[in-house]
Parts: sequence; structure tokens; C-alpha cells
Amino acid sequence: MRLGGSRARHVREVLRAERGDVLKMGMINGARMRGTVVALEGDSVCLELEAGEVPERPRVDLLLALPRPKVLKRLLPQIAALGVGRLYLTNAARVERNYFDTHVLGAEFLREALLEGLVQAGDTLMPEVRVVRELKPFLEDEVPELSADMEKILFHPAGADAGGLREAPDRRRVLAAIGPEGGWVPFELALFEAAGFRRVSLSERVLRSDTAVIGALSLAGHWISGS
Amino acid sequence: MRLGGSRARHVREVLRAERGDVLKMGMINGARMRGTVVALEGDSVCLELEAGEVPERPRVDLLLALPRPKVLKRLLPQIAALGVGRLYLTNAARVERNYFDTHVLGAEFLREALLEGLVQAGDTLMPEVRVVRELKPFLEDEVPELSADMEKILFHPAGADAGGLREAPDRRRVLAAIGPEGGWVPFELALFEAAGFRRVSLSERVLRSDTAVIGALSLAGHWISGS
Repeated sequence: MRLGGSRARHVREVLRAERGDVLKMGMINGARMRGTVVALEGDSVCLELEAGEVPERPRVDLLLALPRPKVLKRLLPQIAALGVGRLYLTNAARVERNYFDTHVLGAEFLREALLEGLVQAGDTLMPEVRVVRELKPFLEDEVPELSADMEKILFHPAGADAGGLREAPDRRRVLAAIGPEGGWVPFELALFEAAGFRRVSLSERVLRSDTAVIGALSLAGHWISGS
Repeated sequence: MRLGGSRARHVREVLRAERGDVLKMGMINGARMRGTVVALEGDSVCLELEAGEVPERPRVDLLLALPRPKVLKRLLPQIAALGVGRLYLTNAARVERNYFDTHVLGAEFLREALLEGLVQAGDTLMPEVRVVRELKPFLEDEVPELSADMEKILFHPAGADAGGLREAPDRRRVLAAIGPEGGWVPFELALFEAAGFRRVSLSERVLRSDTAVIGALSLAGHWISGS
């Protein structure tokens, strides 16, 4: 395989690869690969590829009340690095409507930001992102099917069930829901309850929403990993 | 109590408090307080204070291989928000020596960054920060005493003990250790083992060190909170 352009430059100038070096590579939504550098010629790099396995799909999906664009931008690579299969970015009473207008939700921006996290984690499976503008019909009509084989956990400071994640889950996959800064309102909490979400407290402390997302994904991932 | 200067401005212009409003306040390393606005006069604000309890000291201490200054700066408020009693910032084989020269380690900068996290979390207890330039004598001579009543956990990608945090801990406090980008070297791993640290895998995925710190603190905090 011959690389040119920015990829060849990355191999030569950032990785400073030499003949014989082995690079970790991957096809988006495909297999991981090992690429042995067989030649560096002019502006191009020649690699001999050896295909590895396709990574397992992450066992956590994330339903996240759409954060401020600045926070979302910082979070996307970390969400992809921690491993999320599907990412639902939803409306909520405490989400400002104009957050939905951000360029961060553009397909190209999303893809680049998520790719950064996949590269970090050595994963190839791009999270599927869906923007949900109406929470109620989504929770009532779609979530039951989308999460049929999943534990549904609502991370929420109040209504703590602090020991709730200590027992092994019944199911091997998790749908984790995390609210906006300021939390879900009672009407929304009732919708989540009706949809079968169990409330778990991440911490008694009030956390910034990006801190809470990373904490919740770590907890959910660790929880199902050993079971 | 009468506030002036930047604090009064914050109350008037950011919080937009009016007479009768109740503000959450706190004395650093002292009690939480509720302050009722009794008067807004010229450039000052008068408050009637009601003292609350002194928060419980966080039950997690963190030993962290000193991250790059840019990462450390971003992490400090989040570490304080998640709740850490003592923060040991240590040297390691894969920590670059010049990281110790950063202004981020200056007393004033540390204090401001940690304070931001305390305010977020509604805590008043300032984490005690100690910079440790020599890891070996610290682990051998000081850690045994500093952690006499603590579970010692080394978060490390390899040598996974994925189920290790599922059982309730024997002790109610935790010393969590997290390595640099690239991890601890074998010599350091042996030092931690000799000092009684148990290895736990946060994730099979390779995470950025700031993501790993937040994940590990969330896990450790959740683990001991319900026991």
C-alpha cells in the first residue's frame, strides 16, 4: 500500500518512521492493521499490510443532553476514546435551543473529533451519532427498541442508588443517560423512569458535565467489562 | 458581613442577586455557609451569614505522575471537583524533567485552579498538593505511613484485574496512583507492588491521561461511597 499527501507526511515527520518499523493502523469501521514500512520514496511511503481483527463494538451507548458547543467539542474525542457504540445527543428542558445550531454538530466536524479519539484508543468503529430534538417521543417510541438488550442507567446526582453498580449487570450492554448542567427536570425524570432507566448517583458532588460524562462512561465500562 | 470589590461585583453582575436571595458560600478549609442578601449599597453587598457544616474530607488521595503543564492545568479544577484530599505530583521515568519548571506548579496558580473546582462542587477543603521529585524514596519511605489506613490502587492498562473494584474495599479510604502518558516502566511497577499497590485496569483502551485521571477518580469515589 502506498501513502501520499498528509498521511505520508505524518509517517515521516511526526512518527519519524524508518524502513522496517511497524505502524498501528486501521480502516474506519473495519479491521485494525499492522503496516510495516518497506520503502520511503520521495513524498510517499510504502507499507506492507497485515490485517488484524475488527474491534468488538463498544458495549456502552450514551444518551447525552446536548452540552454547550465548547464542552461538546472537548468531549467528543474523549467519548470516542472511552468507547461508545451509539451517541444520542438530545434536547432537554435545560438545553438552550441555539446549541443545536453549532457547527460542532456538522457531519465533518463530528467525524474528525471522534476520529481523534478512535486513534488515541486504537479503535476503528466510529460511534453512530444521532441528534434528537424531541426527547419525549424518542424515549417513549424509540428507546424501548433501541435498548431492548441493554441495562438502562440514568446518572443523576439526586435519588442516589450509590451501590447500584456494584452487582454484576443482568445484561452485557448499557445505555447510559446523562443530563444537562443543572440536571433533568422532574417531568424528564418521570419519562426516564417510565422507560425503565434505573437512577445511579455518580457522586454526591456537583460536577461539570464533561467531568460527569467521563466519570459515567468509565464507571459503566468498568462495570460491564468483568462480567 | 459586607463584601466589596470583585466579590461584590460577582454577586451583583454574575449572580444578579437581589435582596432576600440566598447564596451558597464557604470559607476555604472551613464551613459551608448560606448568605442572605440583606442590602445592596453602592459597590458593596451586605449578607447575613448562617454557618453550615465543614465538609467531610474526601476519601481519595491521588498520586499522579506529573502530566504536561497544559494537561495539568485542565485537570486541576476537575481533580478538586471530584474530591481529592491530597494530591502527590510525582516524577517518573516517562515524565520530562522540564515539566517541573511550569508556572502551573506555582502556589498561587495551583490555588486558583483548585478553587475553581471546589466552587463547582460546593466543597471548601483545599486539596493539599505536594510535588515529589524522587519517586523511589517517596514510595519506600513515606507512602507506608501516608497510606497506613488506605486501600492502595494502581490504575494501569496492563495486568488487568478488571473485577477488582467490584467487591467492597476493606478500608474506607483510597490512595489511587496513575502513571504518565506511556505508562510506568517495569522498575516503577515493581516499586508500587512492593509498596502494596494492587493493579486495576481502568479500561483495555489506551486513554489520554486526563481522561484516565477523571475515570479513575470516579471509579475510586463510587467504589468507596456505598460501603
